[in-house]
Amino acid sequence: MNIQTPVNALPTGAIPTGERPGSRKVYQAGALHPCLRVPFREVAVHPSANEPPVTLYDPSGPYTDPSAVIDIKKGLERPREAWVLARGDVEEVEARAVRPEDNGHAKGRHLAPQFTSDRKPLKAKAGACVTQLEYARAGIITPEMEYVAIRENLRRKETDAFIRDGEDFGAEIPDFITPEFVRSEIARGRAIIPANINHGELEPMAIGRNFLVKINANIGNSAVLSSINDEVDKMVWAIRWGADTIMDLSTGRNIHNIREWIIRNCPTPLGTVPIYQALEKVGGVAEDLTWEVFRDTLIEQAEQGVDYFTIHAGVRLAYVPLTAKRVTGIVSRGGSIMAKWCLAQHRENFLYDHFEDICEIMRAYDVSFSLGDGLRPGCIADANDAAQFAELETLGELTKVAWKHGVQVMIEGPGHVPMHKIKANMDKQLKVCHEAPFYTLGPLTTDVAPGYDHITSAIGAAMIGWFGTAMLCYVTPKEHLGLPDREDVKQGVIAYKIAAHAADLAKGHPSARTWDDALSRARFEFRWEDQFNLGIDPETAREYHDESLPKEAHKVAHFCSMCGPKFCSMKISQEIRDAAAGQNDVAVAGMAQMAEKFREAGGEIYIEAKDG
Amino acid sequence: MNIQTPVNALPTGAIPTGERPGSRKVYQAGALHPCLRVPFREVAVHPSANEPPVTLYDPSGPYTDPSAVIDIKKGLERPREAWVLARGDVEEVEARAVRPEDNGHAKGRHLAPQFTSDRKPLKAKAGACVTQLEYARAGIITPEMEYVAIRENLRRKETDAFIRDGEDFGAEIPDFITPEFVRSEIARGRAIIPANINHGELEPMAIGRNFLVKINANIGNSAVLSSINDEVDKMVWAIRWGADTIMDLSTGRNIHNIREWIIRNCPTPLGTVPIYQALEKVGGVAEDLTWEVFRDTLIEQAEQGVDYFTIHAGVRLAYVPLTAKRVTGIVSRGGSIMAKWCLAQHRENFLYDHFEDICEIMRAYDVSFSLGDGLRPGCIADANDAAQFAELETLGELTKVAWKHGVQVMIEGPGHVPMHKIKANMDKQLKVCHEAPFYTLGPLTTDVAPGYDHITSAIGAAMIGWFGTAMLCYVTPKEHLGLPDREDVKQGVIAYKIAAHAADLAKGHPSARTWDDALSRARFEFRWEDQFNLGIDPETAREYHDESLPKEAHKVAHFCSMCGPKFCSMKISQEIRDAAAGQNDVAVAGMAQMAEKFREAGGEIYIEAKDG
Repeated sequence: MNIQTPVNALPTGAIPTGERPGSRKVYQAGALHPCLRVPFREVAVHPSANEPPVTLYDPSGPYTDPSAVIDIKKGLERPREAWVLARGDVEEVEARAVRPEDNGHAKGRHLAPQFTSDRKPLKAKAGACVTQLEYARAGIITPEMEYVAIRENLRRKETDAFIRDGEDFGAEIPDFITPEFVRSEIARGRAIIPANINHGELEPMAIGRNFLVKINANIGNSAVLSSINDEVDKMVWAIRWGADTIMDLSTGRNIHNIREWIIRNCPTPLGTVPIYQALEKVGGVAEDLTWEVFRDTLIEQAEQGVDYFTIHAGVRLAYVPLTAKRVTGIVSRGGSIMAKWCLAQHRENFLYDHFEDICEIMRAYDVSFSLGDGLRPGCIADANDAAQFAELETLGELTKVAWKHGVQVMIEGPGHVPMHKIKANMDKQLKVCHEAPFYTLGPLTTDVAPGYDHITSAIGAAMIGWFGTAMLCYVTPKEHLGLPDREDVKQGVIAYKIAAHAADLAKGHPSARTWDDALSRARFEFRWEDQFNLGIDPETAREYHDESLPKEAHKVAHFCSMCGPKFCSMKISQEIRDAAAGQNDVAVAGMAQMAEKFREAGGEIYIEAKDG
Repeated sequence: MNIQTPVNALPTGAIPTGERPGSRKVYQAGALHPCLRVPFREVAVHPSANEPPVTLYDPSGPYTDPSAVIDIKKGLERPREAWVLARGDVEEVEARAVRPEDNGHAKGRHLAPQFTSDRKPLKAKAGACVTQLEYARAGIITPEMEYVAIRENLRRKETDAFIRDGEDFGAEIPDFITPEFVRSEIARGRAIIPANINHGELEPMAIGRNFLVKINANIGNSAVLSSINDEVDKMVWAIRWGADTIMDLSTGRNIHNIREWIIRNCPTPLGTVPIYQALEKVGGVAEDLTWEVFRDTLIEQAEQGVDYFTIHAGVRLAYVPLTAKRVTGIVSRGGSIMAKWCLAQHRENFLYDHFEDICEIMRAYDVSFSLGDGLRPGCIADANDAAQFAELETLGELTKVAWKHGVQVMIEGPGHVPMHKIKANMDKQLKVCHEAPFYTLGPLTTDVAPGYDHITSAIGAAMIGWFGTAMLCYVTPKEHLGLPDREDVKQGVIAYKIAAHAADLAKGHPSARTWDDALSRARFEFRWEDQFNLGIDPETAREYHDESLPKEAHKVAHFCSMCGPKFCSMKISQEIRDAAAGQNDVAVAGMAQMAEKFREAGGEIYIEAKDG
């Protein structure tokens, strides 16, 4: 137990930087907004392949740009601040003063240092509409929208033809994403761009069913473990492996200061669960929570630049009894806090009662809602029960309220759900939440594998992503057991990148197949280096390969250790193909024709074969 | 590269034995056949739970029985030999003499020692029908069938009520498996019990859509790596973690001798791909393969006790050209060997031409067919293509031929398949292969994650298992990169146990939920030890927990390191439940009623609450 570890050390040089193996960071400018520099990761393949480089989505931020100067103490550059200011609808305000309770009354060596900055928070001018939703409704294509459009296209207009082959269950993904398409998706609430006006470091991204499936990684200290260094490092580490957004779920002391360090160094949207900090402010006693404390916390975090808030406003008093006979009751932290408050106070959830007040605060900074599923099932037995679906219906009501106020919304989903009940979740969410983006935790498809819940849940995540979920919240191998460390974060992110990409493939996303096909061609042609570099984790692929065949010469070997040189099926297959190709395409066509003849003849006796 | 490692060391004491943590090995006798001792793993929970122990399926054999004396040099006991002999339809024959080419001409320190035994091989008496399929058709319930019936029930008649809740896509799993049900499933070819009459060490198991979903683990040396010790150890290790069958895919020297060591120590069915050894016998030159060499290999392996043979008889000459334009051609080793032979000889696949001869050999030992999918897709681009489905249709034809000869059959399936194309595989297999059990490799749902293909494929495996696949062939993290080591075997087996169990749950198998619910109750009640012991990998779960909260005291703590003591949602949830329970069931009913009233009243205003 590291509870005694001092937390006031600054982040060190251990932050991982530099390009990924075999990759080059490239940027594309905007057409409407030429100032944009939209990042991609470009993986070049061996010249023998005679193929263009593969363009991959890149949420890793400046950390993978070798020309960027990374200084955690200064934070990232804030190019987006200019876009925000250029709109002329925000103003600087005096920051709410940091109070001792914001950091859990941490003192001395237990107090994490403040991030030093002379930044003043921005806020919408009185009466101004500053959310992406309101701009979209007004027909304005913001730089954020164009940025997202370019990003989602993965340069597919500029490179090879793409293949669309999938079942999308009614999604409407166009061949090419235009800025106007982004605007229209935002306007109708089918997608969000979480983008607090105070998050100048942000590289905008979209969460919506008609965009690439995204993943979120949770970090955060707790009362028991962790420190500032670890959390900033984990954030950078998570986005390096592909996390699209980060949630800071800190619950211990120093919440305010650690969050400031994270946001100032975070190029992805950052989400939080404000009730966690609010609870810290009232000494951890749920019954003592008040609207005033919560409101203060929202403003505190909105001024810092948090991009989305999980708000458990759907945990209504009347639903709490529906959980009493569950096998695992309420497993959401926020949900259980609010349930306890409701029961103790004999009153409706104050988040529900004050929902319009919350909207008014969030719209002034363009903080998006992530409407929390406080009553999500915590085990297979409780999946899709009355409590879960009652809350989901309420979240649908609240979505309309938020939209009325111009606030962007996504909806959180379960949890633990066996495979045969997953689709019902997606279908119900689409229906009752009016197509607002769904953001699910897993779901875990069985309860029996503590230590492997990144796998139990990757199964469910891939499926629900295919069915239409816009963002998948990762689960690490430590789920149910402990706080994830660096390696767990990596394992969770990779399992979820796999789930998200498998979902994109199955949906027939126009950029999905390009990646698989490029890697498979490399595999078939024994371009080992290309196979590693195109893989989701080049370092591990190379390491596994080298355990059996470490020599450099084997990297060009036309076999691998599974079969050895004589037995290689890929090699034999290449020989078959070469034989066919050697006789030109006519020969191949001839072989196919022969096969046809053969089947026509009853498929029993082989008549005559050309030389193969 | 360990190619120089001597292989003639005997297996050492490193073979893992002893009960799994918190588990007890128990046995149940037969009713029809009282001699049977059907093993289960029983996990007792803390007395405070007031619950019966949980019975888990246990393929680990005598290695987890503390009363068993394990001596690898002697092999396991052979209780099943008595059942076979009692039927009076087999006779001892002179064993085919071991020839130098059986072990790849290995000599001196490179030659693995022979397993010492005076066992003579058994064979059906002339004209006798000795396959489980033929017994089943004759209305005979064999000890093997009763063993399987008891095993599949997991003592659910003796313990608590079970919950059935699933979508089974037309499977017909009864509440309780009777010996007669097993017989009828075998008789109609919907299930198999791979059980060579020479495998006296076997603990019989069933592979069929109406039984628990099974998993297979591949082991085997190659020309490049591995030795006898490693392979026996890997077999024991794989079944310890839950592998239901083992395939020995050895391709290097010493194939014969290593296989003998494995079978004599293997309580699960063992499968092989005889063409691998046949190819070794002809110096690795596919063109030189002959029916005679193959036939000799079948008899050699059948006499040893191999339970199922993968036979790539569906790779017909006419289908080979269908693969020429694939992205990754033919990726099955057996498939590519046969394709090369076909093209080189300008003749139909001799396995197809001699299929009835093969049946006659296999029926004399009750070796089951695993009809190989030599043309399975090796990448997403090639999934469900003409070559794959042409072969599948041929496998359906061959199934009928094998059945005509009384030989048991299962069908191998892909491969790499995106999620939206998985169900088509299952549906087509059921149709064209007349409901013979499907046995699939994964499928991998994306190509982009070398190093993580246990995860890419667990997603597909869970889905296809749910749809009706009877056995899932594992994929390890080393897939595409290298030969799996011990840790890879474990990771592969666990990922596949998860997939298989998730499939059982979704199918609504009557024993599936019992396990999840027991673990979830333990989780909710903070019975940490029970949660570990009921988990799929108790050691890892405990280790992960202890990284954060190592003290023994924390094993009874009503919180964990994720949230810390103040924030525990489970704890709060328990308080809610206790509050409700404290006021007895009337109060809970009252709360629920109140919730109902509330919703009837429009759900907007809370009227009045009882004390929670």
